[in-house]
Amino acid sequence: MTTHPDLARVSLGAIQRPVAVALDDVAGELGRIVAGDFPVIAAANEHLLQMKGKLFRPTLLLLSQQAADADEPRVVTLAAVVELIHLATLVHDDSVDHSALRRGMPTINALFSHQIAVIMGDYLYSRAIIELVNLGDLEALRVFARVTNEMTVGEMYQLEAHDRLAYSEVQYDQLIRAKTASLLSGACEVGALRGSATARAALARFGMHLGMAFQIADDLLDYTQPEHVTGKPFGLDLKEHKVTLPLIAALSRMTAAERSLVGRLMDTDAPSDDIVGEVIRVVERVGGLEYARRRALDRAQQAEAELDALAPSVARDALRDSITYAVERHS
Amino acid sequence: MTTHPDLARVSLGAIQRPVAVALDDVAGELGRIVAGDFPVIAAANEHLLQMKGKLFRPTLLLLSQQAADADEPRVVTLAAVVELIHLATLVHDDSVDHSALRRGMPTINALFSHQIAVIMGDYLYSRAIIELVNLGDLEALRVFARVTNEMTVGEMYQLEAHDRLAYSEVQYDQLIRAKTASLLSGACEVGALRGSATARAALARFGMHLGMAFQIADDLLDYTQPEHVTGKPFGLDLKEHKVTLPLIAALSRMTAAERSLVGRLMDTDAPSDDIVGEVIRVVERVGGLEYARRRALDRAQQAEAELDALAPSVARDALRDSITYAVERHS
Repeated sequence: MTTHPDLARVSLGAIQRPVAVALDDVAGELGRIVAGDFPVIAAANEHLLQMKGKLFRPTLLLLSQQAADADEPRVVTLAAVVELIHLATLVHDDSVDHSALRRGMPTINALFSHQIAVIMGDYLYSRAIIELVNLGDLEALRVFARVTNEMTVGEMYQLEAHDRLAYSEVQYDQLIRAKTASLLSGACEVGALRGSATARAALARFGMHLGMAFQIADDLLDYTQPEHVTGKPFGLDLKEHKVTLPLIAALSRMTAAERSLVGRLMDTDAPSDDIVGEVIRVVERVGGLEYARRRALDRAQQAEAELDALAPSVARDALRDSITYAVERHS
Repeated sequence: MTTHPDLARVSLGAIQRPVAVALDDVAGELGRIVAGDFPVIAAANEHLLQMKGKLFRPTLLLLSQQAADADEPRVVTLAAVVELIHLATLVHDDSVDHSALRRGMPTINALFSHQIAVIMGDYLYSRAIIELVNLGDLEALRVFARVTNEMTVGEMYQLEAHDRLAYSEVQYDQLIRAKTASLLSGACEVGALRGSATARAALARFGMHLGMAFQIADDLLDYTQPEHVTGKPFGLDLKEHKVTLPLIAALSRMTAAERSLVGRLMDTDAPSDDIVGEVIRVVERVGGLEYARRRALDRAQQAEAELDALAPSVARDALRDSITYAVERHS
């Protein structure tokens, strides 16, 4: 084991290569599971399947199944279900956040309505449950039901992470564990359900660390990447008064004047690009970005250590590469 | 069997008498299942448990278990789960409809926020799934997951039932079956899961007919009952441009002038009490209310006929009385 993951850029395509055939089937399976003949539902489904992301969670599930050498004939369906749960969550999140764009495409609440977004999220989630019941697998249901509940609690934490200059790193960790890492952990665990108990537990922990690194990296993008790369406005978290790790770390190193600048931004309903840019420069100068990058790397290292419990395999190598992808991606 | 249910008033208390002891335990069980220590969740839970309704769905589940003579040790938990699914649905419905009042108390979206209502509904629903997984019962999960998905489709139908003077009774039936009757049917079916296949199927159909009668009666209340009785504004459906059975039936019997009055109401963003009152009087005069009442009684009769498949019992008598309660209640 290296003490740090190799930080050369890793493409998602390379990570997905060991499970490319199964991944090809996931999109079709997803379409089958969500199919509905009512016009609004069909139109919303079509839009969602078009804005289909990178299938990162299905990739983790499929790789975990291989890496745990688990005898799992239903793995494509389970991979489709984890993406479906993710989609259902995104639809509600966008509605809760009043987001207009996701992955550079209009959200369901923007394209249809807020009402349809709420109902559509419920529709997708209940379809996921129906599919798990049809598989007859109480264990997968147990993991995904727990994770879904954790994600809703994470969303509640998120509401508290607005406008709160006293928000701590402990609270931030609790938030990203519940909101993001729980589902990545669940994806890895469900892939390994029929593997050994050791592999299952190691992969569940791997996914948790990976997910935390992934979310810290995501929160960093808001400070570093322009809109045309991420598909959402630059500095959006600050504009929406969301307190994430770079700001938390920076606040304790700021002068009184710098802190009151942040306070002013948080007290402004629609902060201008100028003040957002100014806060971003302060956060960077006092080391907030560097601190967050280091925390992401710590988590990456913890994730990598968990992989030692698994026998060497192409899938295990790909999981190791997925850590680098999670912390180094630019969008 | 009588050709019509006895239409003397029946109190809910009388219907609940055979299952009173179990019903007492349902509220505590509900509290246990939804418990969460995060302040917002705890506060929302407390509010929801205070606005606890009449436990009509748990009552149906418990009576169905007795009437089917089903050996079901988990019946109190299942009864709590059906109420929880109902609550989760109400929280999202109120959010989708921007309703401020429910049962005369502020809704979650009004008291907290729209965001919290969306998240809270997801929280409650995922807790219900976790509880069903803990019971280890795939059949109950199967019924409730199907029903929940049907309810979301019903909500989509509901969106189409706005402003549509061409809305047909066939569409209305489809809507109320999905939105309301499916959960009442599911409650009865799950209560009888461990009874005979005949009893289970008969009770599922009983619940479906009962649920349709229940919703038609509910839609009639909007035309007949003042705010202090129902806990929501008089004529609210019309104010919100919701087309229900009394109006559907009345439209085909109206003069051109009367139809254009309705068209004017539907074209007005916030219709006055005057025009709403005028449309209600027309709907009544041309027989819309009478028609809807007759359709509710038809459904009530179909529900009653299903009970013939069950052996005579106190619980079966209470289920028969619940039909009268559903069509005759005033709030």
